[in-house]
Amino acid sequence: MDIRLKPIGVVHSCFKEKFGIPRQPGLVPDARADLELLPPFNRQEAVRGIEAFSHLWIIFLFHAAAREDWKPTVRPPRLGGNRRIGVFASRSMFRPNPVGMSAVALESVDCSADAVRLKLKGIDILDGTPVLDIKPYLPYADAIAGAAGGFAPDAPPTSLEVEFSPEACRQCRERQQAGHRDLKPLITQILRTDPRPAYHARVSSQRTFGMKLLDVDVQWRVAGNKITVEALVPKPNQSTQNPD
Amino acid sequence: MDIRLKPIGVVHSCFKEKFGIPRQPGLVPDARADLELLPPFNRQEAVRGIEAFSHLWIIFLFHAAAREDWKPTVRPPRLGGNRRIGVFASRSMFRPNPVGMSAVALESVDCSADAVRLKLKGIDILDGTPVLDIKPYLPYADAIAGAAGGFAPDAPPTSLEVEFSPEACRQCRERQQAGHRDLKPLITQILRTDPRPAYHARVSSQRTFGMKLLDVDVQWRVAGNKITVEALVPKPNQSTQNPD
Repeated sequence: MDIRLKPIGVVHSCFKEKFGIPRQPGLVPDARADLELLPPFNRQEAVRGIEAFSHLWIIFLFHAAAREDWKPTVRPPRLGGNRRIGVFASRSMFRPNPVGMSAVALESVDCSADAVRLKLKGIDILDGTPVLDIKPYLPYADAIAGAAGGFAPDAPPTSLEVEFSPEACRQCRERQQAGHRDLKPLITQILRTDPRPAYHARVSSQRTFGMKLLDVDVQWRVAGNKITVEALVPKPNQSTQNPD
Repeated sequence: MDIRLKPIGVVHSCFKEKFGIPRQPGLVPDARADLELLPPFNRQEAVRGIEAFSHLWIIFLFHAAAREDWKPTVRPPRLGGNRRIGVFASRSMFRPNPVGMSAVALESVDCSADAVRLKLKGIDILDGTPVLDIKPYLPYADAIAGAAGGFAPDAPPTSLEVEFSPEACRQCRERQQAGHRDLKPLITQILRTDPRPAYHARVSSQRTFGMKLLDVDVQWRVAGNKITVEALVPKPNQSTQNPD
């Protein structure tokens, strides 16, 4: 039995590659995306009344993780990357059906002639992600008081300090002067969650890490508990759309 | 672009027809189902560690609601069935991709040679439903404090009183004597949520309603705020499996 679904929308996200994406939604409140409805679903009536909900569920395809084969176990980063648990006991993107779900904040709805865009915050979704469904978050059914969260009972710790080099500060300022949003809060929130793979977090490293965020490549180093953002290298010819 | 998914499991539910299914999970705590993993996903390792989570997300296909066409608006029962809102502002089963998601309680995991069954409670899923994915419920990401729930901010009111006729009481007792679970709490919880369509709830009616539950057809009447369960008519030749 094959189940055929079609994308009803696409995510234009600040995250241009997998590296740096927070491991769950809500961890990086300033992470923004526009969810654009695709034809024939780009109808204003289809989202009528959606502004009354503060949060939405986005059901999407892990399009960058889709594989033909599947493995019954995965090694979640939360367990240090070396303990295996069942794929259905994890939120790993590598699963028999590569479907993800994220509860995200709805900021606003932009409708024009034939374009419907939902402005989202606190996202953990890669740019270009195909969306299968949008549902309102219903607190009475979805927010379960006292649920036991197994190996991930709480949000991951954010014990890292983030500072910006003078060069990076200047680049943030220039970007703002050109009419863009200040990137410092977003970068700080992302880096505090420590996007490094478990292996790199265990070894002391002086290497430079980079992640593609909006129209820049953010470069940083880690020393002990301190992260220094060294530079924001512009990627001006990028063709993808960015959320405001 | 067509997205192809495959069922990884099937739900053996107490609900044998759509009528009577609670409108969200958790409203009927005694509503039970077994989720059976299908080959090749019926591997014990695939659920390793899942017992550490009190609740799971079940992502499933609304197989009884799948349609070729779609409508941009729906009339949710919560709004009396006569106000239209956008399909993406609703949890209606009639949606462009007929995918549902329910947070349900995990009671236990039963593994034998090549069978893996998750025992679930508080379900709102029809018998025979194909399952696309199982994910652990992560309170820190999924339970959003203070989210605004639009037109459904709270659970629906349960102001109806439920009583059992002497005949129905006798049938419940006999069923228990035959080694089955007492059906009274389950039936009471379901009927208190008032499964009648909005139209019937508005008009005073002396008709008998029926719903297929496990191996019986439950028959009841409504008068004012009182529901009387009149009889449990056995359906002995039913071939579907039932949760314990």
